[in-house]
Amino acid sequence: MKVGIVGLGLMGGSLSLALKKHSKDYYFIGLDHNELHCSQALQLGLVDEICTSTEALKSCDIIFLSIPVDGIISVSQQLGPLNDRCTVIDLGSTKEKISLSIPSDIRHHFVAAHPMTGTEKFGPTAALEDLYTDKVVVLCDLEKSGVHQQNVAKKLFTDIGMNIVCMDAKEHDRHAAFISHMPHAISYSLANSVMAQEDSKSIVALAGGGFKDMSRIAKSSPNMWEDIFRQNKSNVLEAINSFQSELKKCQKMVENEEWETLNDWMREANTLHDILD
Amino acid sequence: MKVGIVGLGLMGGSLSLALKKHSKDYYFIGLDHNELHCSQALQLGLVDEICTSTEALKSCDIIFLSIPVDGIISVSQQLGPLNDRCTVIDLGSTKEKISLSIPSDIRHHFVAAHPMTGTEKFGPTAALEDLYTDKVVVLCDLEKSGVHQQNVAKKLFTDIGMNIVCMDAKEHDRHAAFISHMPHAISYSLANSVMAQEDSKSIVALAGGGFKDMSRIAKSSPNMWEDIFRQNKSNVLEAINSFQSELKKCQKMVENEEWETLNDWMREANTLHDILD
Repeated sequence: MKVGIVGLGLMGGSLSLALKKHSKDYYFIGLDHNELHCSQALQLGLVDEICTSTEALKSCDIIFLSIPVDGIISVSQQLGPLNDRCTVIDLGSTKEKISLSIPSDIRHHFVAAHPMTGTEKFGPTAALEDLYTDKVVVLCDLEKSGVHQQNVAKKLFTDIGMNIVCMDAKEHDRHAAFISHMPHAISYSLANSVMAQEDSKSIVALAGGGFKDMSRIAKSSPNMWEDIFRQNKSNVLEAINSFQSELKKCQKMVENEEWETLNDWMREANTLHDILD
Repeated sequence: MKVGIVGLGLMGGSLSLALKKHSKDYYFIGLDHNELHCSQALQLGLVDEICTSTEALKSCDIIFLSIPVDGIISVSQQLGPLNDRCTVIDLGSTKEKISLSIPSDIRHHFVAAHPMTGTEKFGPTAALEDLYTDKVVVLCDLEKSGVHQQNVAKKLFTDIGMNIVCMDAKEHDRHAAFISHMPHAISYSLANSVMAQEDSKSIVALAGGGFKDMSRIAKSSPNMWEDIFRQNKSNVLEAINSFQSELKKCQKMVENEEWETLNDWMREANTLHDILD
């Protein structure tokens, strides 16, 4: 089976490793505008071949788009026409704009997917064989995908150990804004506010596990996140607002020394872990 | 050597495990108002004996106060008089109010310490042998401690593999507000804002590593953190304000679609990891 991977970074590279682990039956063709990433991907065995245009991918059975979300929209404009059995799967963190922008004549070839996994690292050297194992993948607007394409995507994600959740793209983007995108805005803000106030020596001396965990995703790729904030602007702004109200509540309770109410509020926050753990 | 541990939770319990690993020469006497924690600590071998009042600790060579920070202040009022060679080490996350509140006749017995480590878990069953290994411990206002007590504390923290940083208590509290206390306020706010907007099913489906990391410390003990926010109120409020300005910057850039500036601002945040990694 011929698999094209557009974008040889953490997500694309890890996908190749996961598929290879499951079966020897795949042949990978990679495309990336970053030449270093192309040679690294070849060297690491993430792909068998590098191509230089989307034209060369048209013979593939499956094409993954694992690039920043604006890139997904522009590449999808150049992909058609595709052979009947071709399945294109995008792995973008936003879904509505992507789902709507795919040219209608090739829309049935596409499956809009968002694997809920990642690390703050990027590039082919960041690829991990088990990045997708036991994680959730959200498939959006699945009724717009062809039956063959739906089946290919479901089998493939199941093969690499993922749990499938279906959702419409609009709904996905609102949830993702609260549970993923806004937390990134917070982590970036935390990193910048601490660096504005604290010297490096104190940060190194005093950073415990809590701060390290909360600032980890502030290392994420600005190019990738610029696109996500742009595509999911209104939901992200709503989520930031909602977070700000909660933080203001906390601030007021500390200011007014409402310790019992603050204690109850923290106890409420504790319950998140009844859901997550 | 007889060691008293007031507070048989994560910090006190882990300290016993770390000291035991380093030497067989310690005998541990535990004190905790929580009877379950007392029996668990005995059962887990964290202490050799349980006592029921601070009176029984006065024969100890070292007394650790590993309880919430308001408790440290109230216990320290009842501890005197102490024998000449006794060293009392408090492990509170705030230092100025504690350092100032210790009765002056026993002040030289005290060493004000803040080990920059912990997990979101609590109680004796959360104790870890290597919680303190390779971590920083901040010793505050060390000139107010007796020379013997300074040496005891330094040797002991070095023995369990910690790196010592000295600082005055006022300075510590400001740094800790930015690097530890305010991030806790953010994590609690994040947990509450997401639970207010999102149903459990979506949270479980969509929570990736980033959200899990950022909400992990929202599981921390409300009683412990109520005390910390109270004792470090003004610094915490300043740190929250500073974080809010940064988040507002992010919000404005998204709102006004200043994508290039947003990209630069995220790139700035990335540099935190040149400091931390």
